[in-house]
Amino acid sequence: MKVLVLNCGSSSIKYQFIDTKLSITLAKGMVERIGMSSAVLTHQPHDREKIRIVGEILDHTIAIEYVIAVLLSKNHGVIKDKNEIDAVGHRVVHGGETFSGSVLITDEVMKALKDNIELAPLHNPPNIKGIQAAKELLKDIPQVGVFDTSFHIGMPPHAYLYGIPYELYKKYKIRRYGFHGTSHRYVSQRAAILMNKPFEQLKIVTAHLGNGCSMAAVCNGKSVDTTMGFTPLEGLLMGTRSGDMDPSVILYIMAKEGLSLSEANTLLNKHSGLIGISGESSDMREIEEAVAEGNKKAKMAFDVFTYRVKKYVGAYAAAMGGIDALVFTGGIGENSSLVRKNVCSNMEFLGIDFDDELNNNVKGECSITKPDSKVKVFRIPTNEELVIALDTEKIVSNN
Amino acid sequence: MKVLVLNCGSSSIKYQFIDTKLSITLAKGMVERIGMSSAVLTHQPHDREKIRIVGEILDHTIAIEYVIAVLLSKNHGVIKDKNEIDAVGHRVVHGGETFSGSVLITDEVMKALKDNIELAPLHNPPNIKGIQAAKELLKDIPQVGVFDTSFHIGMPPHAYLYGIPYELYKKYKIRRYGFHGTSHRYVSQRAAILMNKPFEQLKIVTAHLGNGCSMAAVCNGKSVDTTMGFTPLEGLLMGTRSGDMDPSVILYIMAKEGLSLSEANTLLNKHSGLIGISGESSDMREIEEAVAEGNKKAKMAFDVFTYRVKKYVGAYAAAMGGIDALVFTGGIGENSSLVRKNVCSNMEFLGIDFDDELNNNVKGECSITKPDSKVKVFRIPTNEELVIALDTEKIVSNN
Repeated sequence: MKVLVLNCGSSSIKYQFIDTKLSITLAKGMVERIGMSSAVLTHQPHDREKIRIVGEILDHTIAIEYVIAVLLSKNHGVIKDKNEIDAVGHRVVHGGETFSGSVLITDEVMKALKDNIELAPLHNPPNIKGIQAAKELLKDIPQVGVFDTSFHIGMPPHAYLYGIPYELYKKYKIRRYGFHGTSHRYVSQRAAILMNKPFEQLKIVTAHLGNGCSMAAVCNGKSVDTTMGFTPLEGLLMGTRSGDMDPSVILYIMAKEGLSLSEANTLLNKHSGLIGISGESSDMREIEEAVAEGNKKAKMAFDVFTYRVKKYVGAYAAAMGGIDALVFTGGIGENSSLVRKNVCSNMEFLGIDFDDELNNNVKGECSITKPDSKVKVFRIPTNEELVIALDTEKIVSNN
Repeated sequence: MKVLVLNCGSSSIKYQFIDTKLSITLAKGMVERIGMSSAVLTHQPHDREKIRIVGEILDHTIAIEYVIAVLLSKNHGVIKDKNEIDAVGHRVVHGGETFSGSVLITDEVMKALKDNIELAPLHNPPNIKGIQAAKELLKDIPQVGVFDTSFHIGMPPHAYLYGIPYELYKKYKIRRYGFHGTSHRYVSQRAAILMNKPFEQLKIVTAHLGNGCSMAAVCNGKSVDTTMGFTPLEGLLMGTRSGDMDPSVILYIMAKEGLSLSEANTLLNKHSGLIGISGESSDMREIEEAVAEGNKKAKMAFDVFTYRVKKYVGAYAAAMGGIDALVFTGGIGENSSLVRKNVCSNMEFLGIDFDDELNNNVKGECSITKPDSKVKVFRIPTNEELVIALDTEKIVSNN
């Protein structure tokens, strides 16, 4: 099946056109600066050169029209007829408590998505726009929604409830949801395959460390806890997000600095994390460079970052009664040998026998522990688009 | 040495009069409702009946005057002359970054205490009032300050820094401080004695579970991390405090419910935690009774409570590279066999071989693990007043 995977943001759309049978991406690309006269479409067919087109793209419908046109284009395309698109898979950020798995998009689903806008006011509206645009342009081609939250939605109440009055949970659905679910699901399943053991019998901690960072405790094939919460702000230190803190801190800062709710939100989401502590950069590569040059604040930011990951590895081991594997993925997880090394140092008590040499020479999916290590540590590049395409294929085939 | 230990709150003073040589409390008691005409003094000499006096006590000076009078009283007292009070030890909540240990109170120290008021606006002012009153009444008798924060103040930056802009840490001293330090220090030292091993060579996790709850990672005799933070709100679920949560949650609730900063603070500190989730009680004994009767929300509150403790045991094991001992103390830690059992269940991966029978029959300081358990788990009643008395003796003797 050939699936067009769409990830629609407020002013950008990322896409991949995937042949699920061959498990290859026939083409991928991105439309940026939607709404402007200088919007940019970058398109990369798997077997030809990348192209870049600049022009006026005023809304998501026009953007997706361009995407379809370039997929059909004689010189840069990969299909000859629109009908070769068998289905469209959409990444949707927030499924709330409604969706515990991927779903065929129906009118009912659209209504539920709109009901969940309040939970993800920045993300769900462009996701919905993208679905509407694709429906308009591709009429009867089935569309599937794959949620960032759904892998986590089955976690037990002791993991998802906050210590606030229960009425506030009921009234506003304030609870831990967790995000990056598609990635946590994919890399934990891949780890089970690499271990040649049933996914349903393994305790795996997954660390998706990118610009946003989250970890999950995947017990017997299910996410039983995760670090991001009601929003993606909670948990690990991130590029620009604070992660965990004493809830009093934000009230104290608001009082002292006279911040509004929205200014406080901006402070914690955009000016905190690695950039907040280091004052240097939100990018781990630049933080590591600064550390190498002896920058003390960059070193503190790096240490807070790795220390939190380490603590959650321990916390999730306790949550599951031990672990069989730890997986690193995401831009930082896949590419920073220093982060992986620091997280895994002094973790012999858990059963991790780390292999420095393997860690310094990673390629593709690989183990970075000694052969006899009781707990395996893997570096597994994530592939959320492939998961979306495979989910889409499965759901479309079953309907 | 005979030390009067004072713990001064805004409208109450707890006291103990301790003979450090004999390690016994000669008398203890409490003045409540200070500032009212119906204030109450309860006094318990170690060898006679408890008495209760009701009368007008308008301020801390008068309250301490009453305490001294009752210590000297012919019928209920334990000394004959004021000068038998060799020293006064004060519990002080917040030492900020200034105090890394207990100190003799001098004019300089008083100034520093006042400088830290902003960090503990509810607690430090009555502590200061108590010191001033005791100085006024006991003139040349030396006074010592013992801080809730000082045991934790040496923790490394990666444990005390929040993911907020570094300038905010510098400007407002916003960082993790931690509290209950006197208790964590005492029970971890006791654990080392019970294990017959040097305190400086042990990795101990201490869980002080009372109305306020906190845990500490005590590595080689030093606190290297703790769950309470800038304020006592962070970390574990408590009687009425929320503990950890996505910082966005509070902003979301404030927006939805139209709460002011002070209302938000009250919500999180007074109406959350066990009482918030269960809607039943902030008292663990009542929560356990409700659980036994099949109350579902009480069960959720209980589960969130124990799950968080469990996660921090794992997190601190990761922080220290494993643990040698886990200690339960505080009202809940000492008295709830169910909490201890739930926290320790399924923790064999850490080296805990829990003994149900020992756990159900605790008395005094005792181990609740099997003799061969790699990691020892102890129930150790805390004794903060004794630590304050001993610190006071040590400091007064050295000056």
